[in-house]
Amino acid sequence: MERHTDRTRGVAPVANTPGAEKFLLAAKRAEICSLRQLAESCELVTAVSDLVHQLQRERGMSNIFLASGGARFRGQWQEQMDLVRRSSERLQRQLYLRYLKQEGAAGMRLLNSIAYSLQGLDDLDGLRVQVEQLAIAPLDSTRAFCRLIGGLLSIVFEAADVADDPAVTRMLVAMFNFMQAKEYAGQERAWGAIGFARSRFDSVLHDRLSHLQEAQHRSVEVFIEFAEASDQARWQGIENSPPAQDLNRLRRVIRGLADGEPIAAELSEVWYELATQRIDCMHSLEDHLAGRLLDISRQRVAEAESELEDHHARIHALKAIVCPNTSPLTMLSDPEVPGLYGAGEGAAKEAAAECVPPAQGLTPNLARSIYDLIRGQAHRIKQMGDELNDARRALTERKQVERAKGVLMRNLGLSEAAAYRKMQRRAMACNLRLADVAATIIEIGEKAAEKSTQA
Amino acid sequence: MERHTDRTRGVAPVANTPGAEKFLLAAKRAEICSLRQLAESCELVTAVSDLVHQLQRERGMSNIFLASGGARFRGQWQEQMDLVRRSSERLQRQLYLRYLKQEGAAGMRLLNSIAYSLQGLDDLDGLRVQVEQLAIAPLDSTRAFCRLIGGLLSIVFEAADVADDPAVTRMLVAMFNFMQAKEYAGQERAWGAIGFARSRFDSVLHDRLSHLQEAQHRSVEVFIEFAEASDQARWQGIENSPPAQDLNRLRRVIRGLADGEPIAAELSEVWYELATQRIDCMHSLEDHLAGRLLDISRQRVAEAESELEDHHARIHALKAIVCPNTSPLTMLSDPEVPGLYGAGEGAAKEAAAECVPPAQGLTPNLARSIYDLIRGQAHRIKQMGDELNDARRALTERKQVERAKGVLMRNLGLSEAAAYRKMQRRAMACNLRLADVAATIIEIGEKAAEKSTQA
Repeated sequence: MERHTDRTRGVAPVANTPGAEKFLLAAKRAEICSLRQLAESCELVTAVSDLVHQLQRERGMSNIFLASGGARFRGQWQEQMDLVRRSSERLQRQLYLRYLKQEGAAGMRLLNSIAYSLQGLDDLDGLRVQVEQLAIAPLDSTRAFCRLIGGLLSIVFEAADVADDPAVTRMLVAMFNFMQAKEYAGQERAWGAIGFARSRFDSVLHDRLSHLQEAQHRSVEVFIEFAEASDQARWQGIENSPPAQDLNRLRRVIRGLADGEPIAAELSEVWYELATQRIDCMHSLEDHLAGRLLDISRQRVAEAESELEDHHARIHALKAIVCPNTSPLTMLSDPEVPGLYGAGEGAAKEAAAECVPPAQGLTPNLARSIYDLIRGQAHRIKQMGDELNDARRALTERKQVERAKGVLMRNLGLSEAAAYRKMQRRAMACNLRLADVAATIIEIGEKAAEKSTQA
Repeated sequence: MERHTDRTRGVAPVANTPGAEKFLLAAKRAEICSLRQLAESCELVTAVSDLVHQLQRERGMSNIFLASGGARFRGQWQEQMDLVRRSSERLQRQLYLRYLKQEGAAGMRLLNSIAYSLQGLDDLDGLRVQVEQLAIAPLDSTRAFCRLIGGLLSIVFEAADVADDPAVTRMLVAMFNFMQAKEYAGQERAWGAIGFARSRFDSVLHDRLSHLQEAQHRSVEVFIEFAEASDQARWQGIENSPPAQDLNRLRRVIRGLADGEPIAAELSEVWYELATQRIDCMHSLEDHLAGRLLDISRQRVAEAESELEDHHARIHALKAIVCPNTSPLTMLSDPEVPGLYGAGEGAAKEAAAECVPPAQGLTPNLARSIYDLIRGQAHRIKQMGDELNDARRALTERKQVERAKGVLMRNLGLSEAAAYRKMQRRAMACNLRLADVAATIIEIGEKAAEKSTQA
């Protein structure tokens, strides 16, 4: 009878004093919810990757169309515009269904970077009219495309930056850096084409090309750090392929030219063709990465869902078995939980020396179980947090390096390339990571800025 | 008529091709939603801060009750248990209303740290029975309380770690570090009381006390970095107050004792009383911080809400004015938007040299406006991100230092204090920040671990 009353009385408090297991389950549901959002972001990234590729192609064709005074590539350009339009419509439909029909499906930063790019996309037809009428310089058209592509890439960056699952974040970091490398490759192609069109490469152009090659290299390095072995091998395959090798030879020819030394404009087509072949290979690796990104993100949702079911089953089983009078094992008595500083080292012995009998009345194996679930989840979260920090580091350091570069450009009046080289030299001289040098520069730069406003 | 058709045709696409301004508004709504969640987390932090304080008091009283074999503090302890119960019920009611009745109001990590602490709270009555029956050693009781308090502090840490508004995050980082300092002060009080109760301080105890004093100092330093000038002044007031000065004198007396040199047990009460007075002063500063935390977080919600209204009004006004045939200014033609590498430096001149007339037909001042809204918001988000990184750095570095300490303890078999001192010495010798040393240790430690599993 006593027991029955206990159980009856137990019903009311449950409604407003929450049990630990309810929060355990709520935490798991929150994880599932955020993994679902993440899977949707990954689909978005896939659509963005396709649109970026189509825009990169249109950029190249518009460039040639303009440079040839409308003589070349008219047909191909028209077809390409259709591909861009279709890709753009697909993306916009996705955006509407995912983020406007259901609120709360993405954060402020992702949504704003979408707004930013959409406004650029809206203006694309205006740009095309100018291209059609030959009313814009090739360089200006290229710049407009680059801005739009840069905006779309920032969507991918934001998706990676807010992801909170380590496996998916790693893939997103790899994907973002690969897309970035491909865009640098596209810009290298554009500047190279400009040099050939002018039949000369001056020192400014040399500097730009080498900076873009370095930038590709750096992005690829981060990609390799976070990619799987099979993708690394695919990348090696691309770099060892005949067009990439031929492109390297042509890069060396350009590098060997003195400032302003003339070069045959006819090489322009060879340059363009080789660079394009390499970029197309990069795109097929990118497609492959996008496919796996989708697989992994969906798999993580499924895993978390089955973990939730498992939690439910275990809690249900425990409630049926555990006798209400036994106190469960909790963090209070877990020697592995740190609490009092210094009590870990030899404290157990001290306690034993003070001769108090251990607490009785527990059936440890059963009582552990709910606590085990909570601890297990806490442990997993901690581990995920560490892995996540490592993956995000690659993104944050990138941001830090950009920010530090800005400080040097402003304060010392350096060009972007010079600022970067300065940081690189300092890192090598002091055996520091580039990011650590960047952090110091930002700190010093901001103190200097504070002082100058105070003065 | 032409115009009319245009407008009619315009209606359908709006429904499924999203306009940039819709995402601009969605981004602002997402910000408001996340600020509201943050304001709720701040209320939670306030409730946790109160419960931690009450538990710290109960911990001290239980300790004296146990050490005196049940002779002292029985009445005060009973009263204190009621205060803890009331504070705990308040917190649990809040938790239930905020996080279980409405799903999606918090992330996995915050919810799991809540589950973890709640399970500990559930076990508190079991601990009290042991204390009442004198069936637990004072040290074990202290350890149990420390674990529970550590769990509750981790709720505050999680709330700070997931916050994405710089102003609120700064306050949360200050608050968390101050709470942490206060907890170290409580642990120092406990170890001091143990030393006096034994009438001697051995080298192990000396080491612990000095480590806890250093730990307070480090946490207070971070608090000061993120606190406002008035709070820094309040803190100075506490440190200069007579009880804090007297406590410092007593600390020096203890430090001057040789290993095992006897000291009057009667000083125990003086020690306890002085430490308690200082901790109570810290609590009133903590209450003050909590109050401002709530104010700031609510103010941020109100600000974002009025920004949303402003966005609506501006977009509405623009739609009424802008002639549908003028193409708006977008990122595509904004010279401030980086896109093509190298095109910033002198590219405008190059473009001008190629002699293309600028695009016509814009009414720039009007057309800029929607784009201005989007750019303004993007700029603010970027700035907030930088500020946020700076505030989060303090939390991440803390985690990194803890993780590196663990690597050294495992790999070199060092004690916690020795591991910390080793890192500190290395940082000073190489003129590096502690966090940079920690990052290197983690990197090396993990490579070593990978190698040993491969071998």
